[in-house]
Amino acid sequence: MNIITKLFGIKYPIIQAGMIWCSGWKLASAVSNAGGLGLIGSGSMHPDTFLEHVRKCKKATQKPFGVNVPLLYPELDEIINIILAEDVKIVFTSAGSPKKYTSHLKEKGITVVHVVSGAKFAMKCKEAGVDAVVAEGFEAGGHNGINETTTMALIPRVRESVDLPLIAAGGIGTGASMLAAFALGADGVQVGTRFAAAEESSAHMDFKKMIVNADEGDTKLMMKKLIPVRLLRNKFYNEVEKAEMSCATADDLRNLLGKGRAKKGMFEGDMEEGELEIGQVSSLVKEIQPAGIIIEEMIKEYNDALCKLRKIED
Amino acid sequence: MNIITKLFGIKYPIIQAGMIWCSGWKLASAVSNAGGLGLIGSGSMHPDTFLEHVRKCKKATQKPFGVNVPLLYPELDEIINIILAEDVKIVFTSAGSPKKYTSHLKEKGITVVHVVSGAKFAMKCKEAGVDAVVAEGFEAGGHNGINETTTMALIPRVRESVDLPLIAAGGIGTGASMLAAFALGADGVQVGTRFAAAEESSAHMDFKKMIVNADEGDTKLMMKKLIPVRLLRNKFYNEVEKAEMSCATADDLRNLLGKGRAKKGMFEGDMEEGELEIGQVSSLVKEIQPAGIIIEEMIKEYNDALCKLRKIED
Repeated sequence: MNIITKLFGIKYPIIQAGMIWCSGWKLASAVSNAGGLGLIGSGSMHPDTFLEHVRKCKKATQKPFGVNVPLLYPELDEIINIILAEDVKIVFTSAGSPKKYTSHLKEKGITVVHVVSGAKFAMKCKEAGVDAVVAEGFEAGGHNGINETTTMALIPRVRESVDLPLIAAGGIGTGASMLAAFALGADGVQVGTRFAAAEESSAHMDFKKMIVNADEGDTKLMMKKLIPVRLLRNKFYNEVEKAEMSCATADDLRNLLGKGRAKKGMFEGDMEEGELEIGQVSSLVKEIQPAGIIIEEMIKEYNDALCKLRKIED
Repeated sequence: MNIITKLFGIKYPIIQAGMIWCSGWKLASAVSNAGGLGLIGSGSMHPDTFLEHVRKCKKATQKPFGVNVPLLYPELDEIINIILAEDVKIVFTSAGSPKKYTSHLKEKGITVVHVVSGAKFAMKCKEAGVDAVVAEGFEAGGHNGINETTTMALIPRVRESVDLPLIAAGGIGTGASMLAAFALGADGVQVGTRFAAAEESSAHMDFKKMIVNADEGDTKLMMKKLIPVRLLRNKFYNEVEKAEMSCATADDLRNLLGKGRAKKGMFEGDMEEGELEIGQVSSLVKEIQPAGIIIEEMIKEYNDALCKLRKIED
């Protein structure tokens, strides 16, 4: 029992990241049923789809679960209305100012967590009254901070800046890295990549296979002139890399990206033309597993790694 | 006592990185006298200067110390000859193939360590017969791997690939991050940035002051078309950033860099025109301290952080 398990009413301080095209009700409820905190990722859902996922998740688990809401989302107000109407208890917000919705959601009794990429943003979260922060490092998949601060440098800097419950994200896919995050001062971890490849993930099977086959150097933070995003190497990645080497402008990149590429890749399984968002830790993810096994293994790995650590004698 | 302290005959598994313009005999001997392993950085020394530093270091400490040798160094053969003639016992090689000198040095009874940025390179080190590897993440200062793998993702990947003694580098400046590195599977840590700002560092005082005042977002991996290097924000950094935004070629960058810029900044104290190489963890370095105090604090922080870690109950 620690500050994070107490805050959410869960057994283990492991949060499954709310990811586009991967984390619907199946994954979120599986994680919550296994003792972690599952999050439905609203970022790739129209409001009617989102409503369906929330309702199915409530039926699939009696345990606490939450939703992730990117604040730049075009149909944001509808999503927030569904959250309130369906009595969702936990909301993770990202990609925007924590001032935007925190007090509104908290008035309704909702636990609010905001995702940050630096200590300055964590301090803004504190001011906005959030209940906890996720600090996400450069190695994380998907959209990412402009400062490129890695989890190793980020977590201690956020830890010394705010006294909020702190969830580390980026590069964490095993119990050993969970232990490392705790050593750095985190109270919990958010895991994306390993759960994107989980059996219950709604990602396309071909994308899951690519994740478990990825090795070091197979992801890269790209599109920095637009919104930085970490992508898995494929034909589209190679095109972006070539364009960036040739000094593509933000407009060039927007045109190259077009519409619906993440869906095409991550959900529909076009492994050449699709945009594949994933973290560096894909190099350590070896198999497609049920979410419950992932959590069980992580807890065992954490405890095993802890047993190996020794005090250093003066 | 662990595999790293045993390998080098030192008290604490903390290695002070061999850095250009920072780590001469004063810093290396201070670190070794305090129970760590000090390294003389030969990369910024002509052979006669290097010889002087080795001789002074031998007089200043009875404890083991080593030297760092970048294998792309123009006067490499002279440096190697000095190492052999002066009976230096420990050599860290970097920036080149471990096959180049490892067997030659090991025949003379020298302990050889090579710096890598990925598991593939670590496996080549194993083949070349090195005694240990340093795995250095994206957050590290100075020259850096092209794959941009962070310490969090890198150390477990190297750990599972080779059974060599493993030293983690990049983002490690406190005892908490040292503990995190051990949780990830490292047997020791190499610390650059915090020692660059040590009292005994030969860096210019103005550079040391800039390091302790640096915050998150103040360093960036640049010059990727030439050789990637992490720089501290100043006038020169801004010029490189602008050039790279405008699609500078490798030749443009080479011209912009010119000759002697690192010396100008790090050693001579030109904080505007100089090239300032430093790691992301500068955001956590708060004061200029004696090397012995840094080691003492890191050991205390490590043990304190370890005491706070708790087993997670099933």
